[in-house]
Amino acid sequence: MSNAIFNLNGRVWIETADEKILGHGRIELLERIQASGSIRQAALQMKMSYKQAWDLVNHMNNRFGQPLVTSHRGGKGGGKAIVTEYGLKVINHFHVLHQKLQEFLKENLQNLTF
Amino acid sequence: MSNAIFNLNGRVWIETADEKILGHGRIELLERIQASGSIRQAALQMKMSYKQAWDLVNHMNNRFGQPLVTSHRGGKGGGKAIVTEYGLKVINHFHVLHQKLQEFLKENLQNLTF
Repeated sequence: MSNAIFNLNGRVWIETADEKILGHGRIELLERIQASGSIRQAALQMKMSYKQAWDLVNHMNNRFGQPLVTSHRGGKGGGKAIVTEYGLKVINHFHVLHQKLQEFLKENLQNLTF
Repeated sequence: MSNAIFNLNGRVWIETADEKILGHGRIELLERIQASGSIRQAALQMKMSYKQAWDLVNHMNNRFGQPLVTSHRGGKGGGKAIVTEYGLKVINHFHVLHQKLQEFLKENLQNLTF
């Protein structure tokens, strides 16, 4: 097996005993909410329903014990959603983890012996 | 966030530029073929069709450039399938990788700061 052709890839996520609570997809959702200021826009961009996005946000807010996203409904064009300082910290920490995983994968690709 | 409640989990897999060629599920398939001596039995155990299992085995055999599984069709009760020495080496290497990932996850769980 040639290491020039093959690549090692991976994912990490945070879970409880019962369920996944934060992974690649939810981080993307948080970042799109942050960029657009809108859960609806973020949902559209990710081709998911508004309800799905809301459920994911609520799920994260509940499981982390403090909100990652706050939102204010109503007004023309819908409400405004904001990723909290805590949410930004979580996003940043996940990126650090992702970066460490990339280093892990790179190192172990060199050690592939088959 | 309490590290007592949350867990860090992950997966690694081997891919080319175009496609996944070896991950958790295929390693399980190889191990079940090894244990049962039968692609049909392994497929049944994993609730996949015989064709699906065959396609996965062929795909791996082609992409790795040498067979991970050899099989002899026919006879009463169907043919016999064997995981080659090379296949066993690949399985073992994947387990080493998996173990290293577990250490990576354990170490980084301790560093979770949110």
